[in-house]
Amino acid sequence: MTLKVAVAGATGYAGGEILRLLLGHPKYLSGELRIGALTGNSNAGVSVAEACPHLPTLADRVIEETTPATLAGHDVVFLGLPHGFSAEIARQLPETTTVIDCAADYRLQDAGEWEHYYGSAHAGTWPYGIPEMPGHREALTGASRIAVPGCFPTGATLALLPAVAAGLITPDVAVTSITGVSGAGKKASVALLGAETMGSLKAYNTAGKHRHTPEIAQNLAEYTDETVTVSFTPVLAPLPRGILTTATAPLIDGVSQATATQTYRDFYADEPFAHLLPEGVQPQTQNVVGSNMCHVQVEVDERSGRLLVTSAIDNLTKGTGGAAVQCMNLALGFDETAGLPTAAVAP
Amino acid sequence: MTLKVAVAGATGYAGGEILRLLLGHPKYLSGELRIGALTGNSNAGVSVAEACPHLPTLADRVIEETTPATLAGHDVVFLGLPHGFSAEIARQLPETTTVIDCAADYRLQDAGEWEHYYGSAHAGTWPYGIPEMPGHREALTGASRIAVPGCFPTGATLALLPAVAAGLITPDVAVTSITGVSGAGKKASVALLGAETMGSLKAYNTAGKHRHTPEIAQNLAEYTDETVTVSFTPVLAPLPRGILTTATAPLIDGVSQATATQTYRDFYADEPFAHLLPEGVQPQTQNVVGSNMCHVQVEVDERSGRLLVTSAIDNLTKGTGGAAVQCMNLALGFDETAGLPTAAVAP
Amino acid sequence: MTLKVAVAGATGYAGGEILRLLLGHPKYLSGELRIGALTGNSNAGVSVAEACPHLPTLADRVIEETTPATLAGHDVVFLGLPHGFSAEIARQLPETTTVIDCAADYRLQDAGEWEHYYGSAHAGTWPYGIPEMPGHREALTGASRIAVPGCFPTGATLALLPAVAAGLITPDVAVTSITGVSGAGKKASVALLGAETMGSLKAYNTAGKHRHTPEIAQNLAEYTDETVTVSFTPVLAPLPRGILTTATAPLIDGVSQATATQTYRDFYADEPFAHLLPEGVQPQTQNVVGSNMCHVQVEVDERSGRLLVTSAIDNLTKGTGGAAVQCMNLALGFDETAGLPTAAVAP
Amino acid sequence: MTLKVAVAGATGYAGGEILRLLLGHPKYLSGELRIGALTGNSNAGVSVAEACPHLPTLADRVIEETTPATLAGHDVVFLGLPHGFSAEIARQLPETTTVIDCAADYRLQDAGEWEHYYGSAHAGTWPYGIPEMPGHREALTGASRIAVPGCFPTGATLALLPAVAAGLITPDVAVTSITGVSGAGKKASVALLGAETMGSLKAYNTAGKHRHTPEIAQNLAEYTDETVTVSFTPVLAPLPRGILTTATAPLIDGVSQATATQTYRDFYADEPFAHLLPEGVQPQTQNVVGSNMCHVQVEVDERSGRLLVTSAIDNLTKGTGGAAVQCMNLALGFDETAGLPTAAVAP
Repeated sequence: MTLKVAVAGATGYAGGEILRLLLGHPKYLSGELRIGALTGNSNAGVSVAEACPHLPTLADRVIEETTPATLAGHDVVFLGLPHGFSAEIARQLPETTTVIDCAADYRLQDAGEWEHYYGSAHAGTWPYGIPEMPGHREALTGASRIAVPGCFPTGATLALLPAVAAGLITPDVAVTSITGVSGAGKKASVALLGAETMGSLKAYNTAGKHRHTPEIAQNLAEYTDETVTVSFTPVLAPLPRGILTTATAPLIDGVSQATATQTYRDFYADEPFAHLLPEGVQPQTQNVVGSNMCHVQVEVDERSGRLLVTSAIDNLTKGTGGAAVQCMNLALGFDETAGLPTAAVAP
Repeated sequence: MTLKVAVAGATGYAGGEILRLLLGHPKYLSGELRIGALTGNSNAGVSVAEACPHLPTLADRVIEETTPATLAGHDVVFLGLPHGFSAEIARQLPETTTVIDCAADYRLQDAGEWEHYYGSAHAGTWPYGIPEMPGHREALTGASRIAVPGCFPTGATLALLPAVAAGLITPDVAVTSITGVSGAGKKASVALLGAETMGSLKAYNTAGKHRHTPEIAQNLAEYTDETVTVSFTPVLAPLPRGILTTATAPLIDGVSQATATQTYRDFYADEPFAHLLPEGVQPQTQNVVGSNMCHVQVEVDERSGRLLVTSAIDNLTKGTGGAAVQCMNLALGFDETAGLPTAAVAP
Repeated sequence: MTLKVAVAGATGYAGGEILRLLLGHPKYLSGELRIGALTGNSNAGVSVAEACPHLPTLADRVIEETTPATLAGHDVVFLGLPHGFSAEIARQLPETTTVIDCAADYRLQDAGEWEHYYGSAHAGTWPYGIPEMPGHREALTGASRIAVPGCFPTGATLALLPAVAAGLITPDVAVTSITGVSGAGKKASVALLGAETMGSLKAYNTAGKHRHTPEIAQNLAEYTDETVTVSFTPVLAPLPRGILTTATAPLIDGVSQATATQTYRDFYADEPFAHLLPEGVQPQTQNVVGSNMCHVQVEVDERSGRLLVTSAIDNLTKGTGGAAVQCMNLALGFDETAGLPTAAVAP
Repeated sequence: MTLKVAVAGATGYAGGEILRLLLGHPKYLSGELRIGALTGNSNAGVSVAEACPHLPTLADRVIEETTPATLAGHDVVFLGLPHGFSAEIARQLPETTTVIDCAADYRLQDAGEWEHYYGSAHAGTWPYGIPEMPGHREALTGASRIAVPGCFPTGATLALLPAVAAGLITPDVAVTSITGVSGAGKKASVALLGAETMGSLKAYNTAGKHRHTPEIAQNLAEYTDETVTVSFTPVLAPLPRGILTTATAPLIDGVSQATATQTYRDFYADEPFAHLLPEGVQPQTQNVVGSNMCHVQVEVDERSGRLLVTSAIDNLTKGTGGAAVQCMNLALGFDETAGLPTAAVAP
């Protein structure tokens, strides 16, 4: 049997990354998985050759409009759409279709938080696509609706989770996440011009304003009874891809470097895509570009009495498209790691 | 049967890229191909976790010294070494080993040219690894010694070859090739510091001094009886990977845009890794990063009476490591395209 | 007496650079020159603090609309506007006002060329602002209407002029000019997003289509009786500022390196802003960023029988805003070099 | 009278920036200040044309060796040398010479902290060159020995000082400072190659290990009686120049956004080089490149109960060379702002 996969929002960065990964997926190479409709909005009617020149084997395909009709008849539908529109489309897809949503609509559990941050009615909550969070892999296996996490929450959660779960820290965390510019999407904007972003660094949506703030808090709160507080500072940096997260929190008295290291080593021992680096080696975004890996380092800072955790992911791979394919693998019962690179395109 | 593959110079950029591709190669995933010795010089004794953090699944491996002994007992040896040393090692490997050399030692046919440009004795000439050059695919198939081409000659040759072979131009070409900084290798140097290269552009080894100049001329001369003249200007630009080649030459009277486009379309019609873009779309290095593709465009400039050809490759993939794996596939009788991405890590 | 200066298009890159230079100009620091109206279109009503945060001493000023009325009553008006609109405004300014136009409207002498390239009626021809072109400094001195040259023509002209004027080459030139992204202006666009331009190289408006092509030809033709032919290939590269120009042309028999070097040295001996580098040192855009300099190198390539000339400028300084201020200095009878840095913001 | 100024370490980034600023300084342009010896070590004997091509008006000068003899006979000596060597030279200069030291030797007051962080004997403590710190301007005026601050401490101190001095926060601060690569100096290194730093982000010297940590703490402790704790995380980012500092600390109950904004506005009201941005505008390193400004923003984050302060400086200007010239102006009784740009080279 051949499974037919559609990508809505195929000309955006999330959609393009999902397609890159599908084209190298063993089920695609063996013919068991087929790429069906590719949809866009402003690009409808344009060839892939023009809209996505980085996908030459699909060059002759044509982008269709994003409607329930063009997405009908597919076994799997990836949604790489703006939130709101994503939920609107999702609601019209059959229950038998596996829907993997890269937008925010179904990530938050708390309707009040959703309304506060997004200013619209809450669409609902779907299984949340970080399989490395204890309990989530099971919920994702065989699921027919999956919410792919935000890119910042992925980096921050994988950095902080072992420390929170093991009670190494008071969960009052200060997170600074530095991101490449593809995180802002493919939409014309003066502030995101090359001339405005190259050679420059800028914080934005600071002081609790960024919509990923409650998602980070929600993830950490699953693993502690204490109140979780998140100070989140996103920074835009001049690179195309990558997120480096630095997070600190007050260290519980008596936690040593050895304990911290061992906690992280144990937590991620069996995870294919979360990797604790050797002592003295810091995560570097270059070393995860194009791969589905999250590199992590943990350090006890005795002078300041804080734990420092750092992580690196590719915001478009482990942060979006790779997570989406990892979730598809779980949803369809494939090998979870199929088609997902661990080696990075470095340098 | 399992084939055992060694990579000499595994901690350099060429070696690292070969390993990235091997780790995703279907023969590796199926267990038919195994990664053996990984060698380095200054890094001997260091773990891969520290020397190559972008290859986490090999993290526990240790870099060995580059000697004939450490490379013995392998079916395939990739050499990612400085020229001179590469030939010295190559000479000591058994004839039954498939040796794929990423250095320059065995690329040139003319010993005088070698001596002029490299100032040492010529080591010899091996089958030359651009399968897209008519006649070369046959010579590479089953070969046990292969010279992987230089990165600039790959971009310039694939750009100009159809025009030279079809006689669209007088082969007196002016080539400007703009390269990312990984092309200069992984060697400490003030001139190649981030602070000296970011935000800057500089030509280097200009006016015939670059060692890739005779290699470009040699490749084009295979397909014309006219004298080939190459003015070659390499430029260093602030990006990690990628080469954009722009080449012009006097147009033969009466050659139209339609003829030029058709010539290129026909020439590359069956090539998996050379791709003529639609009219109006220019090659962009971003669209080939991490892939083994060469994107090409051709234009008739009637005002100046010249043909303009442009091409984009990833200098470490199609320009080095990808070409090496493509050659390995031919040498060992695998599918030529196995393990070689066509989709790029864009943006 | 205090001169009052207006900048139309103050929130664009050209306008911002002119203001940066005026704020450090000795006539401004001494109070002899005063900054009057700052105009924009979409930004009218916005404070400089928000529209141009890089000019903090003007933070409290407000951007006005670009109209003849807001520009009235100024001794000098800089126009940093789109072509067409620039000429429309210029026509309505009094003859007694010194008008320095950074748009293309008054650069070309040939109305046919203008119409071919710009598709509208030719506005006229004004004194052309490259004082380093023999005869031009005189025409610019005291002029009340000045056309600031295009950024590419400045780099290409200063590179090729000595060779053309001295007859070292046949003026059939192949020019590749690699530019930073600020050259494309400050206008929302998907193709110019940081994510589309960082880590990427792309040629554009190739094969005679770029509007600066006839301007380069016009400049060179002033100094030779031979037919000038220009093959011009602009390339967009991932840096904010800077143009590196590489130009080759057939060498006249018998021209030696010594002759070429001496020709260039003599030609620019007394020029404050054109600088021949020592033999073996190539122009690097980093070394001219923020300065009004053009660095030049010239080399004889005996193998290909061509002369190679390379030049580096900052497209916003010597390429636009610096040239505009240099022209203002000549127009008003100030020291030509006043307020114009020769030292670059390197690295 | 003409003052003679020497720059030791003229070929490094600090030295080069000091020279760039001196060449535009009104006292240099008027002839009251003359540039004397330029020294280096590996570059001794090399022309400025080759060693510092960004300073073309000094092209014919020759770099001398750094010895007390070559530095003798100057009124002002700038030291842009490695720590240790800097103190060794400084000790041999006459008391009548104004010595402005860009190294760390004389910054710290606590000999124990010095020994812990630098592993050598403490050289002493000189007037510390942040005139914006209350009391320091007076100490710097007329001083003959000045310690220029570290680049990170400048950004962090100017960000946090008003909040600490006004008691808006508990001084238990978490600072993440993201720096361009010139901060690491001009020394050959694999880790700092363009290929290793472009397109990548990496934290380094984390968890209290960075030598600027105690300097930040020392500065803040001058203005509070509470214990100051600093968690400092430096991050290397792919840009040549610029530091963006993000700092958070627990907010004292009841401090409103209005109070925070007014505190900062008042604190910096008369400072020429510290600039509070309008609400809603975040500091961006691009907007301070090449200028001596520090842009600051302050925000109350009610959800996390923390204050967020962000600042942007050019690490080579306000972070080093500009601070050095500002200190020279104070030491010699010049206008403090002379020769120091406030407008940035943006974009």
